[in-house]
Amino acid sequence: MNKDIKFLKETLNLAKKGLSWTNPNPMVGAVIVKNGRIIGKGFHHKIGLPHAEIEALNNAIESPQDATMYVNLEPCAVFGKTPPCVDAIIQSKIKKVVFCTLDPNPKNHGKSLARLKEACLETSVGILETEARKLNETFFTFHEKKRPFVAIKFAASLDGKLATKTGDSKWITNEKARIYARSLRNEYQAVLVGVNTILKDDPNLGVRIKGKKDPLRIILGSKKQIPTNCQVLRDQNILIISAKAIPDLLSALKEKGIISVLVEGGGETLGHFLDDGIIDKVYAFYAPILIGGKTAISIGGKGTQTIEKALHLKNVSLKKFDDNFLTTGYL
Amino acid sequence: MNKDIKFLKETLNLAKKGLSWTNPNPMVGAVIVKNGRIIGKGFHHKIGLPHAEIEALNNAIESPQDATMYVNLEPCAVFGKTPPCVDAIIQSKIKKVVFCTLDPNPKNHGKSLARLKEACLETSVGILETEARKLNETFFTFHEKKRPFVAIKFAASLDGKLATKTGDSKWITNEKARIYARSLRNEYQAVLVGVNTILKDDPNLGVRIKGKKDPLRIILGSKKQIPTNCQVLRDQNILIISAKAIPDLLSALKEKGIISVLVEGGGETLGHFLDDGIIDKVYAFYAPILIGGKTAISIGGKGTQTIEKALHLKNVSLKKFDDNFLTTGYL
Repeated sequence: MNKDIKFLKETLNLAKKGLSWTNPNPMVGAVIVKNGRIIGKGFHHKIGLPHAEIEALNNAIESPQDATMYVNLEPCAVFGKTPPCVDAIIQSKIKKVVFCTLDPNPKNHGKSLARLKEACLETSVGILETEARKLNETFFTFHEKKRPFVAIKFAASLDGKLATKTGDSKWITNEKARIYARSLRNEYQAVLVGVNTILKDDPNLGVRIKGKKDPLRIILGSKKQIPTNCQVLRDQNILIISAKAIPDLLSALKEKGIISVLVEGGGETLGHFLDDGIIDKVYAFYAPILIGGKTAISIGGKGTQTIEKALHLKNVSLKKFDDNFLTTGYL
Repeated sequence: MNKDIKFLKETLNLAKKGLSWTNPNPMVGAVIVKNGRIIGKGFHHKIGLPHAEIEALNNAIESPQDATMYVNLEPCAVFGKTPPCVDAIIQSKIKKVVFCTLDPNPKNHGKSLARLKEACLETSVGILETEARKLNETFFTFHEKKRPFVAIKFAASLDGKLATKTGDSKWITNEKARIYARSLRNEYQAVLVGVNTILKDDPNLGVRIKGKKDPLRIILGSKKQIPTNCQVLRDQNILIISAKAIPDLLSALKEKGIISVLVEGGGETLGHFLDDGIIDKVYAFYAPILIGGKTAISIGGKGTQTIEKALHLKNVSLKKFDDNFLTTGYL
């Protein structure tokens, strides 16, 4: 058991190296262990490239016959952009496969587990399941809820203002907080803002870290509203979309295979997500300032009638950036 | 120097025992040390009762002749409700007086220091000055800025709402946070709310801890607006006052000898203090909930035009109450 945990943790660490590049695939790492020693490891580098299991087999420094394969997710069972991993595993004469959790994608769910058992391989499922689900929380939500994982992010004064009454919002939070906030974009397949945010702030919406992939920029609005010299129009990595309601929007994004979206504003767009209660994760950044003003910008929408009906976050954590701080939680 | 710090820390600890009871006097503790050993100590228990220095002299277990007196504030030099401490100290034949800081009250400021020098006592001023000023921050502000120390307190959702659009605000924060918030009232001579808060919430505004003194309850409004069965009218410890502007209000409170006030709401009243920039300390409690709504209640007033003009807090600290938290800072 202790060695299983050790090797599965290794798969989780390997998996993370694919962050942002694997979307809409999950992040997966695999190690092959023989006589207590890792003889091969791999991770899924990027959508379209070999899966972690195949990488580990290809990288094995000796025969995988009678070895154990550790992997953080159930191997795939169907032809996608690459052939099914389960076939390669069985052909490799690996003796046992240990994975944290079943694949939530209905195309794969439980199928490889059944195939492995039929082929008389030993199997183990469930160790570090919580950690494995957390790592791929966007992927699990996408398949289990049939919609993209929705995170919202905002930066506010202590009195919850996202901008002053004149629309000034540059910058509420300090540089460390802003750099961290930008880095979060790397964890999502797409970022989304309402068109008013483009008009007011002309944001870049990029990760701006060398070697990191920018997410798809989704603008809620119509193309004719957006000035052609806006920063978001700098390349083709953009989707301009209008929708009557948030569920319609998310259905459209699901059809496009977008498993996760980070909604960054503005106040009304965030309010619409809040009104529909379709938020999975919240990143709330605060600076120790007071702005005030009845007409200053804060999260809008209709709002809840009562405190009881407010959205309550769980697993709340606090992170400090000098005198700024971030509250993160799940719904 | 090290022993001076040790004995002065003892005076600060003694002083704290008078919290809330000494107003509008400062909290003061005194110890008398002879041959390295404390021979007497005391603190100012309550306005009208003997000062700390007199208590320490009265409690001395041997003659204070040639001893050193430690006290966190310059002894008083004038007749108030009690005779000047400096006279008693000189008469006691104490040899040296060590205190952290001069008394900011112009009636006393530097006067005892001069008297002690004239009487050929040794003196030392300035050790632990920062700590001593912090302990009596409300008293120092009152005398130095010629107005009460103003702290504001609010409890908000992560999106800065103090109540939903229907006015529901019970309860945003959890019980631990609310108990702590109530205990803060003990640190102020008065609490203040706008009359709308009375009408909406019928708050108690008490400390509700056995043996602790309730602050004066100040209601901004007119008596005829307040229903006679309101909780705040339960006893005579109340001041109903109207004022055209915050500076006028604070002048009136200063004339009444109120050295500190904790402003607890509602959104518009807090907004007025913010607009005038007359806030010394902020207690911002948050619950991990999202309320939303363009018409929900948040800190109002006019608000600042720009982020640069927002009130910026210093010495910011965070305190957790399970998944609720408190940000405290100074302006």
